[in-house]
Amino acid sequence: MRILITGAAGMVGRKLIARLAKDGSLRGRKISSLDLHDIVPPETPAGLDASIHTGDLAEAGAAAKLVASRPDVIFHLAGIVSGEAEANFDLGYRVNLDGTRALFDAVRLAAFHPRLVFTSSIAVFGAPFPDVIPDEFHPTPLTSYGTQKQMSEALLADYTRRGFFDGIGIRLPTICVRPGKPNKAASSFFSGIIREPLAGQEAILPVPRSVLHTHASPRSAVGFLIHAAEIDGDRVGPRRNLTMPGVAVTVGEQIEALERIAGAEVVKRIREQPDETIWAIVKGWPTRFEASRARELGFKAESSFDEIIRAHIEDELNGKVN
Amino acid sequence: MRILITGAAGMVGRKLIARLAKDGSLRGRKISSLDLHDIVPPETPAGLDASIHTGDLAEAGAAAKLVASRPDVIFHLAGIVSGEAEANFDLGYRVNLDGTRALFDAVRLAAFHPRLVFTSSIAVFGAPFPDVIPDEFHPTPLTSYGTQKQMSEALLADYTRRGFFDGIGIRLPTICVRPGKPNKAASSFFSGIIREPLAGQEAILPVPRSVLHTHASPRSAVGFLIHAAEIDGDRVGPRRNLTMPGVAVTVGEQIEALERIAGAEVVKRIREQPDETIWAIVKGWPTRFEASRARELGFKAESSFDEIIRAHIEDELNGKVN
Repeated sequence: MRILITGAAGMVGRKLIARLAKDGSLRGRKISSLDLHDIVPPETPAGLDASIHTGDLAEAGAAAKLVASRPDVIFHLAGIVSGEAEANFDLGYRVNLDGTRALFDAVRLAAFHPRLVFTSSIAVFGAPFPDVIPDEFHPTPLTSYGTQKQMSEALLADYTRRGFFDGIGIRLPTICVRPGKPNKAASSFFSGIIREPLAGQEAILPVPRSVLHTHASPRSAVGFLIHAAEIDGDRVGPRRNLTMPGVAVTVGEQIEALERIAGAEVVKRIREQPDETIWAIVKGWPTRFEASRARELGFKAESSFDEIIRAHIEDELNGKVN
Repeated sequence: MRILITGAAGMVGRKLIARLAKDGSLRGRKISSLDLHDIVPPETPAGLDASIHTGDLAEAGAAAKLVASRPDVIFHLAGIVSGEAEANFDLGYRVNLDGTRALFDAVRLAAFHPRLVFTSSIAVFGAPFPDVIPDEFHPTPLTSYGTQKQMSEALLADYTRRGFFDGIGIRLPTICVRPGKPNKAASSFFSGIIREPLAGQEAILPVPRSVLHTHASPRSAVGFLIHAAEIDGDRVGPRRNLTMPGVAVTVGEQIEALERIAGAEVVKRIREQPDETIWAIVKGWPTRFEASRARELGFKAESSFDEIIRAHIEDELNGKVN
């Protein structure tokens, strides 16, 4: 089993690599080689022999070189984030669209038909939404990032239909609890209000507790990727882009779960400090997804926000709460 | 009023030019210049001063040259058809996606913010469908052509949101009655069973009379384009790609309309000769569209198939039936 991962230095990439190193196999076959690509050198995992690649996928010839090992499974996670794609128009289209298309075309021209798993995003949807977004709801993104994901999804479906590869696109919900430091993303607080209090630090809550949103843990995100690599493509059929399941909770329910697990003292570290700018952005986001197809196809998220917090404590805090 | 039309040598392009020449104005302003582009030289219309351009829009620098006149309105009709895009993968993506993106980028870089009307297609939809496809139904095309249209729609919406131009994408239903000769398109018979009998010739009907489909006349298609050029963009909002209205009828109802208008003798020229291959393709096509947004925004199709036949007789047969 030869595997290629793009975006291997990112948070989800690193966790996927750790999981693959632990499992040692994918699709029932021992992992024999791992090609890791990112714009900066990804870390080499313990216990797996990995080739490290860096550079811009959209550059002529780069993608062809990357797929020269003819991997059985490709995880295409590379991309720049929403804020960056919005701030830098050219870079966003170059990395998120042209890079993806270059990779897809390199696979097409080398004609080795791998399973190709692509991380899309719920950013393909744009307001106004129904309360629960059904699987057949149209994507009308309100960011360039969402547009680039939507276009990549369309390519993935067509290249799969044509038999160039066997693609599965997974639309990730907000990943929570993200490890690491707070960042400038408007969604940062969803993780911050759990992560910081558990680490003994103060967190700011900029929106009302009534805000409803859908989350999946980093562990679930990796689970989605592995399942997408292993699923029977015939069962999926021609509609290859799937909205992943998640846990839909209000911010108030997130905080109640934190209190159940870590106690009232920990919850006191959350400070409510309304921020109209952040609230205005968050108001435009989708809240709940039906995700029936993904569930029927065996994609599994946590069943409660308590589970999401416990996954964070186990995976990032060695089971301990400060 | 300066106008640029790509795909100006095609059927819809020629009819649009004739209409503009007749009207002499668009958006209440006298037409002062017309740039016409296609891969072959478009005909110069009577009564309008036109500059003729030929070539491949995707070629470096071609689109920038084409928009150098900074037109107020661009009608982007250029594209290769479904069958050709399916048969020639590279050409389809080059013309229908790269050509469109090159044009959009040329407009963006020249920063003159025109109204840009783009002809998309109901081929963005792929089976299975509900009986009536609502405006919020997701596009999951089952052809490369449909994929290229979907990707172009996504670009149009994002470029509009970013303020690079003011785009409107119109998804055309099947155009019927197409003038000219029968072609190899699976949909050819929808026009053929009207056009040939009216011209005193035999026509083949390869599918059952129960087949339901949505049609608009070439005259309506031109009407959609003009309305899309004139509509207030603020009224449209951020969802810039609109499914156009049409007349949903069975083949049996098409034939009944023909008999009402031209008589039983004309209808006898239709010969039923079932073709399993054509039926298999046609079965996968969408039947009816809600098109509520387009109707609310003032896009108008015929209200009956009788009207569609009468439009053909007036526009193509000088009002006479053989």
